Amino acid sequence: MYDVARVRADFPILSREVNGKPLVYLDNGASAQKPKVVIDAMTRAYELEYANVHRGLHYLSNLATDKYEAVRGIVARFLGAPDPEEIVFTSGTTEGINLVSYGWAAPRLQAGDEIVLSVLEHHANIVPWHFLRERQGVVLKWVEPEPDMSLDPEKVIAAIGPRTRLVAVTQMSNVTGTLVDVAAICRGAKAKGVPVLVDGSQGAVHRPVSIPDIGCDFYAITGHKLYGPSGSGAIWISKERMAEMRPFLGGGDMIREVSRDAVSYNAPPMKFEAGTPGIVQQIGMGVALEYLMDLGMENVAAHETTLRDYAVARFKGLNWLNIQGHAPGRGAIFSFTLEGAAHAHDISTVLDKKGIAVRAGTHCAMPLLEHLGVGATCRASFGLYNTTEEVDRLVDALEFCHELFA
Amino acid sequence: MYDVARVRADFPILSREVNGKPLVYLDNGASAQKPKVVIDAMTRAYELEYANVHRGLHYLSNLATDKYEAVRGIVARFLGAPDPEEIVFTSGTTEGINLVSYGWAAPRLQAGDEIVLSVLEHHANIVPWHFLRERQGVVLKWVEPEPDMSLDPEKVIAAIGPRTRLVAVTQMSNVTGTLVDVAAICRGAKAKGVPVLVDGSQGAVHRPVSIPDIGCDFYAITGHKLYGPSGSGAIWISKERMAEMRPFLGGGDMIREVSRDAVSYNAPPMKFEAGTPGIVQQIGMGVALEYLMDLGMENVAAHETTLRDYAVARFKGLNWLNIQGHAPGRGAIFSFTLEGAAHAHDISTVLDKKGIAVRAGTHCAMPLLEHLGVGATCRASFGLYNTTEEVDRLVDALEFCHELFA
Repeated sequence: MYDVARVRADFPILSREVNGKPLVYLDNGASAQKPKVVIDAMTRAYELEYANVHRGLHYLSNLATDKYEAVRGIVARFLGAPDPEEIVFTSGTTEGINLVSYGWAAPRLQAGDEIVLSVLEHHANIVPWHFLRERQGVVLKWVEPEPDMSLDPEKVIAAIGPRTRLVAVTQMSNVTGTLVDVAAICRGAKAKGVPVLVDGSQGAVHRPVSIPDIGCDFYAITGHKLYGPSGSGAIWISKERMAEMRPFLGGGDMIREVSRDAVSYNAPPMKFEAGTPGIVQQIGMGVALEYLMDLGMENVAAHETTLRDYAVARFKGLNWLNIQGHAPGRGAIFSFTLEGAAHAHDISTVLDKKGIAVRAGTHCAMPLLEHLGVGATCRASFGLYNTTEEVDRLVDALEFCHELFA
Repeated sequence: MYDVARVRADFPILSREVNGKPLVYLDNGASAQKPKVVIDAMTRAYELEYANVHRGLHYLSNLATDKYEAVRGIVARFLGAPDPEEIVFTSGTTEGINLVSYGWAAPRLQAGDEIVLSVLEHHANIVPWHFLRERQGVVLKWVEPEPDMSLDPEKVIAAIGPRTRLVAVTQMSNVTGTLVDVAAICRGAKAKGVPVLVDGSQGAVHRPVSIPDIGCDFYAITGHKLYGPSGSGAIWISKERMAEMRPFLGGGDMIREVSRDAVSYNAPPMKFEAGTPGIVQQIGMGVALEYLMDLGMENVAAHETTLRDYAVARFKGLNWLNIQGHAPGRGAIFSFTLEGAAHAHDISTVLDKKGIAVRAGTHCAMPLLEHLGVGATCRASFGLYNTTEEVDRLVDALEFCHELFA
């Protein structure tokens, strides 16, 4: 039985007030709060067990290295990936996707080669490909979502042509909560011999993930959305794709030998990890992922589905509330505007006065907002510690907004 | 009056034991320990003040943004730089130098163009330039140090030819402690119209820095060596060079507008900061730099000079100890081997048993070790909390090693 009250007690920030009201934190799509066990692990690392990792031979360095390297196995386990050596540490999904763009795509793609993207993508899964368009004439081929903002895997597969070299697609939209059937896309792409990158920034937070079931080539996650520290993250890359990649960031640790005239590189995954890594935040991410696995991602998903259904039912009564997207099986992420009413930023400001944290803007997804025909939205994005009572507080506050601005 | 006992009390880890002996931490060149004020600031950020930065409009997001953005000003002040807008946040010097290599050098340098480097450089200031050699035929021009491992600025300046596009040089060797007169190099390079990148990874830790006095174009620092969190850092870039740079990492925050067919970029420095940044570790770095400024970098430098002089005097008696490099004004970083005795790794293992943390290996500086004609060294690198008693403990342990292995 998922005990949300007990879960909430694990997160120190949730007991604070904002503007004199108990905090209702509904900005999880931007970043999640951290359980005490994660914060304590970092404190412990700095107060008792800190040193640089690798190449040290002293006690603290060995201790820090063991704890840091163990996270590779934790990430692999969290993603259902068989081999920790296929996990590359990054500072988050943005660095992960840039690693693929610079390390795999840039040296392989020619002018006229295509990358297939969906209109649902976050800028982190758009701008690195725009670089390739700007710099070497790669063509971006966009797949539109359905009217309910679901994404038809067949349309993505149909967009793959003879010049397509990569499909880059999100597993869950950070704007509409659309859950994408990435496994179906991967099956179709594999049949055409085209690798698939999955942006798991949101997907991995809200549903159990199994890389073998998905069948992708690249799967990127970001620790701070997974209840871990800022600046943590990882990307899973298949051995086959890793072998095709050239290094991205240059520096210590990723080399085998350096001389004045030559350089040779370390074996993957170290080949793609330059310099002193984010030691303590990766250790913290490991603790966060253990925390999630202890709760059980199936249970987290079920809890959030309950929240979603409750919210959808409560929103139904509000005929002045425009929710963007209604894809079946969507996550508990709701972007909305108020009919004939205030700008999204005004709404978020009013909600904030009531202690409710939502985001307003374009959510790093301008092509999607353009497609939706809205300049900005408010977004309430739920996490594993949110409650139906918080849905009620959101609805009450939205009703207040509606009266205020109507 | 610099009270080292009081300083030590600020660092929780220094009161722990290793292998039953009080910890003597002499691996500061690899990474420094953190004062409680830094650890506490991160705990506070996560427990009370955490949210994603920028574009949020709710209370916690504004609070986190204010604290995060304030660090830009703190870094500028620490470096004596006039304008916080010239500070780009990075995950450390490695990312900073890669930013310059990918963002400034790669699109500008042609085959046959030269980068002048010293043999003292760390791999972080070598491998990104090797990439340009491998990928686009850039020529690396190496300047050798003097027999005492000092670096003659005139030799660096003399190496600048008509095809030289950049000088990339460290301010302090992480192997020999050599302090480089980067201001003299910058004057000479400026007279020839060539920009200079200074690797401040070590220099900024041990001496006061004034960017205007140095006169460089790029100055990179890394937070974890500056008593700040892992994964924190920054690079100062002159407005003039920033204007010449194309973006490096693509994603959220660094854009102005994204559509299917086009992308436009944010103004610097945000143009060079993609995705959710290392929010809490940068806040922690800000606290670390404030801590250093409160102590006074002049006082830190004076304390470490005392340690250096004491160590040099104590080492003098040990005629079986080969210290690498004796440059005048060098820092308190000593790489050494024992004559006719054990491998560096064996020495560090013995020292570790006595609670003394030193590093053994090539210190991410293989060209320098090749120049020195040694395969590996032990390195004792001192920081602001070390004491002359710790020098004594090191010397005692080295004498023990000498007897053991001789």
